[in-house]
Amino acid sequence: MNEVKTDIEIAQECIMKPISEIIDQLSLDKDDWEPYGKYKAKISLDVLERLHTKEDGKVILVTAISPTPAGEGKSTVTVGLGQGLTKIGKNAMIALREPSLGPSMGIKGGAAGGGYSQVVPMEDINLHFTGDFHAITTAHNALAALLDNHIHQGNTLNIDVRRVVWKRVVDLNDRALRQVVIGLGGPVQGVPRETGFDITVASEIMAILCLANNLQDLKARLSKVVVAYNFAQQPVTVKDLGVEGALTLLLKDAIKPNLVQTLEGTPALIHGGPFANIAHGCNSVIATKMAAKLADYVVTEAGFGADLGAEKFLNIKARYAKLKPSLVVVVATVRALKMHGGVPKVELKQENGEALKLGIDNLLKHIETIRAFGLPLVVAINKFITDTEEEIKILQNLCKEHGVEAVLTEVWAKGGEGASELAQRCVSLIDVEENRFEHLYPLDASIQEKIETIARKVYGASGVEFTSKVKRQIASFEKEGWGELPICMAKTQYSLSDDPTRLGRPKDFTITVRELRPSVGAGFIVALTGDVMTMPGLPKQPAALRMDVSEDGKAIGLF
Amino acid sequence: MNEVKTDIEIAQECIMKPISEIIDQLSLDKDDWEPYGKYKAKISLDVLERLHTKEDGKVILVTAISPTPAGEGKSTVTVGLGQGLTKIGKNAMIALREPSLGPSMGIKGGAAGGGYSQVVPMEDINLHFTGDFHAITTAHNALAALLDNHIHQGNTLNIDVRRVVWKRVVDLNDRALRQVVIGLGGPVQGVPRETGFDITVASEIMAILCLANNLQDLKARLSKVVVAYNFAQQPVTVKDLGVEGALTLLLKDAIKPNLVQTLEGTPALIHGGPFANIAHGCNSVIATKMAAKLADYVVTEAGFGADLGAEKFLNIKARYAKLKPSLVVVVATVRALKMHGGVPKVELKQENGEALKLGIDNLLKHIETIRAFGLPLVVAINKFITDTEEEIKILQNLCKEHGVEAVLTEVWAKGGEGASELAQRCVSLIDVEENRFEHLYPLDASIQEKIETIARKVYGASGVEFTSKVKRQIASFEKEGWGELPICMAKTQYSLSDDPTRLGRPKDFTITVRELRPSVGAGFIVALTGDVMTMPGLPKQPAALRMDVSEDGKAIGLF
Repeated sequence: MNEVKTDIEIAQECIMKPISEIIDQLSLDKDDWEPYGKYKAKISLDVLERLHTKEDGKVILVTAISPTPAGEGKSTVTVGLGQGLTKIGKNAMIALREPSLGPSMGIKGGAAGGGYSQVVPMEDINLHFTGDFHAITTAHNALAALLDNHIHQGNTLNIDVRRVVWKRVVDLNDRALRQVVIGLGGPVQGVPRETGFDITVASEIMAILCLANNLQDLKARLSKVVVAYNFAQQPVTVKDLGVEGALTLLLKDAIKPNLVQTLEGTPALIHGGPFANIAHGCNSVIATKMAAKLADYVVTEAGFGADLGAEKFLNIKARYAKLKPSLVVVVATVRALKMHGGVPKVELKQENGEALKLGIDNLLKHIETIRAFGLPLVVAINKFITDTEEEIKILQNLCKEHGVEAVLTEVWAKGGEGASELAQRCVSLIDVEENRFEHLYPLDASIQEKIETIARKVYGASGVEFTSKVKRQIASFEKEGWGELPICMAKTQYSLSDDPTRLGRPKDFTITVRELRPSVGAGFIVALTGDVMTMPGLPKQPAALRMDVSEDGKAIGLF
Repeated sequence: MNEVKTDIEIAQECIMKPISEIIDQLSLDKDDWEPYGKYKAKISLDVLERLHTKEDGKVILVTAISPTPAGEGKSTVTVGLGQGLTKIGKNAMIALREPSLGPSMGIKGGAAGGGYSQVVPMEDINLHFTGDFHAITTAHNALAALLDNHIHQGNTLNIDVRRVVWKRVVDLNDRALRQVVIGLGGPVQGVPRETGFDITVASEIMAILCLANNLQDLKARLSKVVVAYNFAQQPVTVKDLGVEGALTLLLKDAIKPNLVQTLEGTPALIHGGPFANIAHGCNSVIATKMAAKLADYVVTEAGFGADLGAEKFLNIKARYAKLKPSLVVVVATVRALKMHGGVPKVELKQENGEALKLGIDNLLKHIETIRAFGLPLVVAINKFITDTEEEIKILQNLCKEHGVEAVLTEVWAKGGEGASELAQRCVSLIDVEENRFEHLYPLDASIQEKIETIARKVYGASGVEFTSKVKRQIASFEKEGWGELPICMAKTQYSLSDDPTRLGRPKDFTITVRELRPSVGAGFIVALTGDVMTMPGLPKQPAALRMDVSEDGKAIGLF
């Protein structure tokens, strides 16, 4: 009878528990947390230390097929599965990334789940939340200001201003800041040079915060960040500038994970939000590990498709955090698979079994990838209202033929109830399936070998081309001692190949690596396979035009 | 026996009350506030509405002589006096500005009082606090991004890119961003143009937040902000861009005042922090009004000397807020007055009655100014260890000759105890002295008349010169309907004149107004009398080099 409610309407109708009740549920002490408003808390890192001998809960990693404009609802399934586990009586927790504020000003669409599978308070989570991103923005830009000040005040480190690699950041979509010239106005205003701004989620400090195991590790990683090269082409680091202490001080609260709840009261840690292309794209190590200490089941998510987010979760994050996931959930929708099978977006409402069968190839490749890591998995079909029974049957049967169970979920409309079957299956599979998890490559393989392993085993490429620039970079990186870092691939999320137009499961293609970027502080080498967007723009009609605050102070038009 | 403790050592030794206890002290309801950590809270604006019929407490405005490098300790006296009032049994509260994070990275020195007269938790207050400045930075830069996006997407408002007046901000000292060129890189990267970055405290949004009476007033003021001029040289506003709702949404929590406590448990609202030169330099109207509803005595502070901060408090803030201060405290130190009398900083330790007598002229001018507003006043002598009894006697006697009481305070070393005599005198003076407060000029005076009134009555100038540019501006501003706005003078704080080298009480000088800037959203016209620094730089050895975090997560080297 009624119109379908929007996410924000559903979220605002929810009667949340005071965060102290969630804290009590988790058996935390009064000194373990600090409130941020009535429904958010920051948890002290002391908890990790105190519980370090306690056995870890099972970590369930949620990933997906290659994303399409049809949408997969990976976050919604993550939240729904967490609620589903609670529903079937398990002690479960969710660990998610924090959304970036910038894109919300541009395109309508939250990043805190959807429908009846959301984390709340969603307005806070999607706006300033507990200020973590602002702290990262500030630390990042403080480093830039200290660096330019060093150059201005005599440049004793002999920094080559043409080779400053540390840009500035804002947590906004601001196209006009992509390429700028700063330091204009004469000798008292600084030294002119070209540079640019990235969005905050693309900051190496964001990646560092998400990979650090504790405050001292954070500081050690910050020290290693390469900000520039000197005239002898040697790297200049944060340690050379002597400001790692100040940056750590600026991040001392941001490093603490944030506790909130789902619409059904399942506890959720939301912490960190690195880009899934130029960084590893997972929530913080600290949050995932803490959730594993506090709950028997932790549902967490990696960005984009399994070729990007899950690969990085398993090769980078799991390695640094010494985490072993117990199960992987691969989210797929009939709609998105039909797009992978060649159906344009406007025709997705029509049943199309043939296109679906073609598109399922994309899913099957991601399934192969998860198996290559030695991990058990299950497919979650995130049901849309237009899916036909026939289509769902095709999808389930094809998965079955490949030895994988595909469980139907209705998390948007039904919340945890809509994921209780999936939750049941996850629990059973973790109990019965064999888990022979291992990283896809050893760290002491060469940079070249590591990239080739990912391209062949994860993307299904027939080979990798390295430009001559990259070959020179590899030589110099290995000389600097960076050869043993893991690789963070920057590749389009829309295709398994490096060509965003090739959907489904492309065959007979090579990957071209055009440039490497050392993220020595974060602890990986970024390998760029095309243009990587590190500062998005706003659309012609930005979502900001529809936003407002009601008389009683409530958010309007946020999602 | 022991070394003198640093501010941060004293602050970290303090055993703070949980903020809920301070809340109880103020008889607030549970829905009136939200905790931000254990020792900070944001207070709902509903409190103002609920108590609007309650009689206001007495507002005591703390100002000072013209600042010198010797230091006056105005914030320390403000906090000390609040503690002193509590000590003598009064229901008192403090209302202060939030410090800017940027300068703390540069020069050691907190902005939360000092010694035993501080607000705590001082590390939080001096770092990210409750995120208000980050919200302002984000709103300011979101507006800039939306503006540049409008130009990029077709520029239907016909904005002249050479006449965009809205810059960007960071809450950092970043010299290299003062003058920049943005939008480089070709058609998909935006439209190239010159612009710059200010420090966040210089943002008009900061001034707006501090002058708004409520959320709707905030939105109305944001709507009026002039961001650019079109090719017909007409102003383009936030309302023209249609983003006042989005900006208000970004500020919906920042507008709520922050409650903390002093070292002795006196409640303090710390909220807003506009520059005292290009803005009005006082904490928020909302915080001052709320403190007046919650306490019988409110001690608040205005930036720089009485010629700048107090003048703007009384002509701008008090006017918009319909506030009537009950008493003004003018802070002076023997050391600073000796500098005004011509003594160089290195010789300040030596007794010098003659120089002191000369320097007292500066104090006397500020006393005249407060009297011109019809307000009762008292001088607070902020005692330094090197002051001699003879010098203090000279100061007290000279004040007495001019009919003003000068009370000795020892707030740094003794906290509230050191200000209890001052507190007693404040209470008595409020009871017995006549208060004929009025603004110095009516709003319907011409822009020229208003500026001349301030220059003659407050600075003691013999006249004002307006450049031909300013004369043209006055004509066009009056045509735009901005003629009835109050004036916000931008003048050096070091001298009553517009020449920073003329200390003491300069005579026979004129003030030159070089440029006007409309802050139509904030609700004033800025009149610039010289170079105004809106983006500070870092020194050769920034304080950041000494900052760190201890193993147990405590701030090191912050102050």
